Amino acid sequence: MSGNTLGKLFCVTNYGESHGPAIGAVIDGCPPGLELSAEDIQFELDRRRPGTSRHVTQRREPDEVEILSGLYEGRTTGTPISLLIRNTDARSKDYGNLLDTFRPGHADYTYWKKFENRDPRGGGRSSARLTAPTVAAGAIAKKWLREQYGVLIRGYMSQLGPIRIPFQTWDSVADNPFYAPNPGIVPELEAYMDELRKEGDSIGARIEVVAENVPAGLGEPLYDRLDADIAHAMMGLNAVKGVSIGAGFESITQKGSEHGDAIYADGFGSNHAGGVLGGISSGQDVTVSLAIKPTSSIRTMRPSITRSGEAIEVQTLGRHDPCVGIRATPIAEALLAIVLMDHALRQRAQCGLTR
Amino acid sequence: MSGNTLGKLFCVTNYGESHGPAIGAVIDGCPPGLELSAEDIQFELDRRRPGTSRHVTQRREPDEVEILSGLYEGRTTGTPISLLIRNTDARSKDYGNLLDTFRPGHADYTYWKKFENRDPRGGGRSSARLTAPTVAAGAIAKKWLREQYGVLIRGYMSQLGPIRIPFQTWDSVADNPFYAPNPGIVPELEAYMDELRKEGDSIGARIEVVAENVPAGLGEPLYDRLDADIAHAMMGLNAVKGVSIGAGFESITQKGSEHGDAIYADGFGSNHAGGVLGGISSGQDVTVSLAIKPTSSIRTMRPSITRSGEAIEVQTLGRHDPCVGIRATPIAEALLAIVLMDHALRQRAQCGLTR
Amino acid sequence: MSGNTLGKLFCVTNYGESHGPAIGAVIDGCPPGLELSAEDIQFELDRRRPGTSRHVTQRREPDEVEILSGLYEGRTTGTPISLLIRNTDARSKDYGNLLDTFRPGHADYTYWKKFENRDPRGGGRSSARLTAPTVAAGAIAKKWLREQYGVLIRGYMSQLGPIRIPFQTWDSVADNPFYAPNPGIVPELEAYMDELRKEGDSIGARIEVVAENVPAGLGEPLYDRLDADIAHAMMGLNAVKGVSIGAGFESITQKGSEHGDAIYADGFGSNHAGGVLGGISSGQDVTVSLAIKPTSSIRTMRPSITRSGEAIEVQTLGRHDPCVGIRATPIAEALLAIVLMDHALRQRAQCGLTR
Amino acid sequence: MSGNTLGKLFCVTNYGESHGPAIGAVIDGCPPGLELSAEDIQFELDRRRPGTSRHVTQRREPDEVEILSGLYEGRTTGTPISLLIRNTDARSKDYGNLLDTFRPGHADYTYWKKFENRDPRGGGRSSARLTAPTVAAGAIAKKWLREQYGVLIRGYMSQLGPIRIPFQTWDSVADNPFYAPNPGIVPELEAYMDELRKEGDSIGARIEVVAENVPAGLGEPLYDRLDADIAHAMMGLNAVKGVSIGAGFESITQKGSEHGDAIYADGFGSNHAGGVLGGISSGQDVTVSLAIKPTSSIRTMRPSITRSGEAIEVQTLGRHDPCVGIRATPIAEALLAIVLMDHALRQRAQCGLTR
Repeated sequence: MSGNTLGKLFCVTNYGESHGPAIGAVIDGCPPGLELSAEDIQFELDRRRPGTSRHVTQRREPDEVEILSGLYEGRTTGTPISLLIRNTDARSKDYGNLLDTFRPGHADYTYWKKFENRDPRGGGRSSARLTAPTVAAGAIAKKWLREQYGVLIRGYMSQLGPIRIPFQTWDSVADNPFYAPNPGIVPELEAYMDELRKEGDSIGARIEVVAENVPAGLGEPLYDRLDADIAHAMMGLNAVKGVSIGAGFESITQKGSEHGDAIYADGFGSNHAGGVLGGISSGQDVTVSLAIKPTSSIRTMRPSITRSGEAIEVQTLGRHDPCVGIRATPIAEALLAIVLMDHALRQRAQCGLTR
Repeated sequence: MSGNTLGKLFCVTNYGESHGPAIGAVIDGCPPGLELSAEDIQFELDRRRPGTSRHVTQRREPDEVEILSGLYEGRTTGTPISLLIRNTDARSKDYGNLLDTFRPGHADYTYWKKFENRDPRGGGRSSARLTAPTVAAGAIAKKWLREQYGVLIRGYMSQLGPIRIPFQTWDSVADNPFYAPNPGIVPELEAYMDELRKEGDSIGARIEVVAENVPAGLGEPLYDRLDADIAHAMMGLNAVKGVSIGAGFESITQKGSEHGDAIYADGFGSNHAGGVLGGISSGQDVTVSLAIKPTSSIRTMRPSITRSGEAIEVQTLGRHDPCVGIRATPIAEALLAIVLMDHALRQRAQCGLTR
Repeated sequence: MSGNTLGKLFCVTNYGESHGPAIGAVIDGCPPGLELSAEDIQFELDRRRPGTSRHVTQRREPDEVEILSGLYEGRTTGTPISLLIRNTDARSKDYGNLLDTFRPGHADYTYWKKFENRDPRGGGRSSARLTAPTVAAGAIAKKWLREQYGVLIRGYMSQLGPIRIPFQTWDSVADNPFYAPNPGIVPELEAYMDELRKEGDSIGARIEVVAENVPAGLGEPLYDRLDADIAHAMMGLNAVKGVSIGAGFESITQKGSEHGDAIYADGFGSNHAGGVLGGISSGQDVTVSLAIKPTSSIRTMRPSITRSGEAIEVQTLGRHDPCVGIRATPIAEALLAIVLMDHALRQRAQCGLTR
Repeated sequence: MSGNTLGKLFCVTNYGESHGPAIGAVIDGCPPGLELSAEDIQFELDRRRPGTSRHVTQRREPDEVEILSGLYEGRTTGTPISLLIRNTDARSKDYGNLLDTFRPGHADYTYWKKFENRDPRGGGRSSARLTAPTVAAGAIAKKWLREQYGVLIRGYMSQLGPIRIPFQTWDSVADNPFYAPNPGIVPELEAYMDELRKEGDSIGARIEVVAENVPAGLGEPLYDRLDADIAHAMMGLNAVKGVSIGAGFESITQKGSEHGDAIYADGFGSNHAGGVLGGISSGQDVTVSLAIKPTSSIRTMRPSITRSGEAIEVQTLGRHDPCVGIRATPIAEALLAIVLMDHALRQRAQCGLTR
């Protein structure tokens, strides 16, 4: 398989460029009989949509999804589900100079090295806009997992640049543009972002995703471990530079007597494992953490070169997220859903797991 | 594809259990014409072999590899290379009680939940012993990458539990059992480990791996990005709980003006990207960092349950690494080599890259 | 990978139903830099289009293709190419009774058994209409193969029911609706079909496809042999019940001294192998033959059952091809092109083959 | 995935060369809990073993299989099953001249063109000996299918060169070296083969394979249809030049009113479909037919060239089957079993099919 498909049994093939006619995904392998409507998908798309607050890109895309196949009378038929999202607010002229130069920290340079012929308009294929089809596909996985196993997948921002955001309540997450689980800290986040925009700079963030009610037994012994496939999916998301499960990098300083989660007759005593032991889900919450780098498209002048190798100063005007982490939460949820559904189907194949 | 194969074009299928007759790997997709001998592979296997210092498991396995296929007159033929390693020092009786109970933090529990019928002897399939075939396969990838592109892959330990190990020199790495790039710190590491063994406990570690001279252009735009496949491979290694590329989790607090590596006519000004931009290699060093948890097999008594759900205290006698991170360096190098070679072949397929 | 993708490196994922909003394909893995336009694809689509003669279905679909992604300034970028074809002439009411019953010889029954929820309108996913995206993808493969290696892929009808069509000239193929390479026999074919339509019955056919200038070395030793992948692609086409390569079923009665193609300094003395030896292309023409069954959608009354198991008589009105073989030639060419291109990329990956 | 693996969920990776140290297979994806012993596998291996009658190669290989992994206490664990068969009767000197020249009709030429460095001893990787691991893997699939669904897979020879063998009884098949289902015709077959050996020539054959009690619903709509994957597996077998399902090439002259199998309340009225409609199993017997070419290794002198392109006459001494079709029956059964099991797992994944 070529590189634009995620999953082995629940397969999401993503296509499109930021300023081309459309973006979309084909989902192959979805079980038949699932009730599904465009609204189910639109709900998740709207969560990641640009232009919803002053802290994200001002590109205004309705991101309206059309389901082209795979449904009959409101339920999936088991055949490929094709999802189409037209690009409507593409102002390519903003990016005119990008064909000939490279933003430091951006895929401009490597796409050129790899493909030579690249679409530079709005970042082309490397644009964060291409996460929309992922979110759309994830909406299907989320729904199926919820109906089959009661799986609940939720995420939040736990750090914005230097500001740590202590978890307080899930209830707050939907009420602020940052997906912060802590209403009291929102004004500080707003102020930080306002300052950043003035500077014309960008900042990193940290996102947490949690899946509850995951059945035990998902994952493969070697290589395609559940945590390995989660890491693959998450690191495959734009701007992610680090992925961890459970205690993550804190495991380095833990002793075995502390890290290993005690098992009691009524459950585990802690969850340093993050719900995965030996690559296989344990039934505990699957907890994932992502490090997201600052956007490379900034107004600040940076040293770069042209295609012919001459030194140049680059700044990016256009419309960009000063912190791509802000919109990353629903995307990370979608990715986790896709991986879990894929492994649920794989488990069902090999071990016959049913509800 | 089922879950025990790594790679899409350079495919490593791993088999075996810790105390079964043998372990091994079949490597499919290796280009023909590569000079290869058992010695090439044995060299890397010896680097990860148990029993080489008092700080690792005392199991004494020669780990002698036999090449069963895929070679003719000392060169690869392009057909599958089958590598066989017989198990010789398996003392299964040490693990007698493990069939009926679960070590906290260990795959015992999840294998039982997934497969029901599991081989408990020496950890069975979940044993770190199964990294030997990975190392063997990686030796082939390392050799090919070196000959084709001059790629050099090296790793070292950067932290042992609470002790950070500042990088000083590659020269030191092979001279101590910790793969520490800093000879002055080795006595402190030795003392720490001696104390830990007395306690009957275990500890985590951090490993860094670096690939130099990686050609630009390796990786796919979405999902199968080079960093995503590296994360998949690394998180698929026993005990790894976190993976990062380049600046990793430090990207969270970086601004875009700092993180984005400036480009000059004679190269990049820094390497926060870790050699990967937009999922595609840039030609800079690929730098990867792993968080490794403490072994779950410890002499300390821990609360657990039996298969029938009754409370029990568990301790693990047998022979175990008190810090699996100590032997992780050559394995992480092997995994990085396999991923890079796989992507080099994928790149050659799509874009026709040749030396 | 789920079941609606063809190819491992040149990957065609097909979606859609006969009377849904649209059909299409996403092609992943196409090399960058190939000049491509909608016209290139439309040319092949028009060759398989319905409604072009009285001998094929009277459904009138323009089958206009829109390229949604993967192109920049008229050349491929190496990212997925998404092709969209809207359904416009869908008269679903013609098929009203098909939800509750099963045409003998048709996929109605098995789709119901497999998926339960199936789209019965116009045959849904099992309609021959779904070959259009295959043809569209094949147009890209044909173009690339021609430019890279001078590969020429052509097909023709060699038998229509009882009437054998001796090969006379390629020149005639495009000049008659049957793809018959023999202008003299066309009136007989026309008369046969006119009679058949009056009867309300259908008939089988035999198609030959030939690829010239295929480079030697394409294919894998075991399992994924070139001929195996050709057989997979061809038998995956609606109504195909048999596939053969070279001498095919005539090999049964041949002796080795006759079948084995003699090799001379200036080439082979015959081509019983059909261009494939040991699963790998030899450089001779690749020759493939297909047996195509008669359409199951006929006006003749046939015994069948309802979903609840009661006996019923079924006839199919709607608009159907009385001989699906008539439009099969361009589809078989497309399939051969896709397989050859996939193997050319695989060969380039492993063995570095370049022109 | 590279080319030496068969199956997507039940994955058989085959390795080895005819005169190397060993041949074997790794089977990944087998469900846990299946009772399995070396004897189960040995039974099928003995059916294809050479040296059992004067009509097949006189190479005497015990073909003794060793199970290296994947079993615990006599049942599968769900982890990879590694099967090893040592080569013991390899007389490589018989093939001394083959490195420098090419047998007409043999893979010698194409392996050289593809890989350049090839193992010529005993045909190397292209030897029919490599079907032994396939048969071993098929034994596992046969057993699982029988236990899960009562599937019964059997084959027979229906034609030996010019001699058609009318089906009379399954009882006869195991009682003669030809797998002929007709005891009366065996003397004629014996006489034909004796004459052929004297001539130093070889002959083709036709094999039929039938799977009974296949559950309805196996297969995918497009591309990976059940019949397509059967065709892929069968055409991937050495010497096969044609594959057909059900009525096969006779469908060409059938009308729809004849070909389409009538459906009655108590079952189908005929089986022209061969158990597959629209690529999905119908519950009827799956019937497959194979055309097998004559062996290319014959004593008769044939025109060929050397590696440097000079004309030469070639004859093959060594030990060879004058009709590879004679031993093909158990191999074809194994291939059908592997494909059916793979699709049974795929079906279970997507549609949750259980017994």
